[in-house]
Amino acid sequence: MDAFSFNKLIIFGVGLIGGSLARALRERAGIEGRVVGVGRSLRSVERALELGVIDEAVALDDDAALARALHGADLVLIAAPVAQTEPLLARIAPLLEARTIVTDAGSTKSDVVAAARAALGVKLAQFVPGHPIAGRESSGVDAALPDLYVDRNVVLCPLAENAPADVDRIAAMWRATGAAVHRMSETQHDRVFASVSHLPHVLSFALVEQILEAPDAELKFSFAAGGFRDFTRIAASSPEMWRDICVANRAALLAELDDYAAVLARFRAAIDASDGAALEAAFARSRVARKEWQERGSIKTSGDPAAK
Amino acid sequence: MDAFSFNKLIIFGVGLIGGSLARALRERAGIEGRVVGVGRSLRSVERALELGVIDEAVALDDDAALARALHGADLVLIAAPVAQTEPLLARIAPLLEARTIVTDAGSTKSDVVAAARAALGVKLAQFVPGHPIAGRESSGVDAALPDLYVDRNVVLCPLAENAPADVDRIAAMWRATGAAVHRMSETQHDRVFASVSHLPHVLSFALVEQILEAPDAELKFSFAAGGFRDFTRIAASSPEMWRDICVANRAALLAELDDYAAVLARFRAAIDASDGAALEAAFARSRVARKEWQERGSIKTSGDPAAK
Repeated sequence: MDAFSFNKLIIFGVGLIGGSLARALRERAGIEGRVVGVGRSLRSVERALELGVIDEAVALDDDAALARALHGADLVLIAAPVAQTEPLLARIAPLLEARTIVTDAGSTKSDVVAAARAALGVKLAQFVPGHPIAGRESSGVDAALPDLYVDRNVVLCPLAENAPADVDRIAAMWRATGAAVHRMSETQHDRVFASVSHLPHVLSFALVEQILEAPDAELKFSFAAGGFRDFTRIAASSPEMWRDICVANRAALLAELDDYAAVLARFRAAIDASDGAALEAAFARSRVARKEWQERGSIKTSGDPAAK
Repeated sequence: MDAFSFNKLIIFGVGLIGGSLARALRERAGIEGRVVGVGRSLRSVERALELGVIDEAVALDDDAALARALHGADLVLIAAPVAQTEPLLARIAPLLEARTIVTDAGSTKSDVVAAARAALGVKLAQFVPGHPIAGRESSGVDAALPDLYVDRNVVLCPLAENAPADVDRIAAMWRATGAAVHRMSETQHDRVFASVSHLPHVLSFALVEQILEAPDAELKFSFAAGGFRDFTRIAASSPEMWRDICVANRAALLAELDDYAAVLARFRAAIDASDGAALEAAFARSRVARKEWQERGSIKTSGDPAAK
């Protein structure tokens, strides 16, 4: 029932994410469909062709080649920076056949859904928003791996307009890579990732920024040790990508930032009052939760989780 | 000139830090002095004796044994939680011979200096405040290692009252463990570590606390991935230790928290205004600094560092 195959898959942006999907479907799942990579220029997809990750390379501005590629395609993946989702969808909308299902790999979803509504018009139902949660410390097609998605989570945010069978087909594609597929609304998705991913990135960038502005920055960096190293590892992430995510997920991120500032103000008050008991109680709660998360990948709370 | 030896070293609190000093001096530096471990109870230092980390175990409340231990001791290390520094120094003050130099391993220094002033009186000159910067993910004497301090930093915060030769002797002791020894004032020390160590711990605890308070905490934890893992690794640190550090280094930590809140407010304003250029510029600065720190253990800034 979950068997997945395809005839032609078009990937816009063949980097770590798109390249790993292609490799996973071919090398891990053994599926023999044709994979076409589309880049801003031919040059940007040449390496993927060289590596055998794709069967054919197409430049985005080559009207004839793009039309040929999309003709008969059953699947399209948009794996470009989220800010490019709307122009890309607008570019392919007129070429999209009724049989083709489009999905994406963007880190934010409300903005992607808005972009799809604006760009696809009556073809909106063909677009199934998605987000594979995979490491991005390295990037580019050279870093693509057939097992990048094994035991990773992929979130789909189906639209009311989607045919259930189309959503199931995108889910089956991701399961073929070894991923676990989850479904939630785009609002829920953006709130969750604003909290556990986007906010920590902003907080980490802010700590390095603060030290850089200090008059004794050199001295401070020279005594930074293991705690600083772990805390700021994500401050070496791509400035362009995180700029886009902050802007794209603005509303949810601002809400999380404000909640965080409130917790920090409470901690500040406890430190100011030398309220050791309050600090210890909060730190102990965090420690237990962090250890439980580390061991199980989740925690049990007394609260009522938003999705079951 | 740097040759170091001792006749009798007394260690109050034989855990990771105290135990590793004893092992380093004996096993790494090959020094044959006698090492006496003092614990709150005999039981708390029995394991160190079993492991051969110390030659003799003494209970803190055993007046006669403690007096015998301190008789003829040339060195004393206080390696107990910082909150216990003052009572420990008060306990040993009357037993301290003129030849004995006392140092400590506390993570904060202004409060330790205040404690020493209160507890030691005219014997204050015999106390050389210190702080070995060594990982503390594991704790207890079973985690003690002879090479824990190799290529680590040790900060000494000499007092105006200290004899230079006594400070040199404590520096030589730490160098014998393989550490690099630095000197700065206790105020400078506390500001530096408030920034690069204490603040990130508070920020990390606060993120986990915030998620725990969210109605969809379970869902959020279940999608937390690599960025969250690194950012919150220090949120699994000892609640008691970090409670003590927050209270002991209150003034410097509050100043860093306020500076951090100001940076975060600026980032918030840029996100609110969808000011991608400002965000990208800040993130790019952080990324360059973080990468340079990773590669060199320090950064070059245009600023004038407080200490050369």
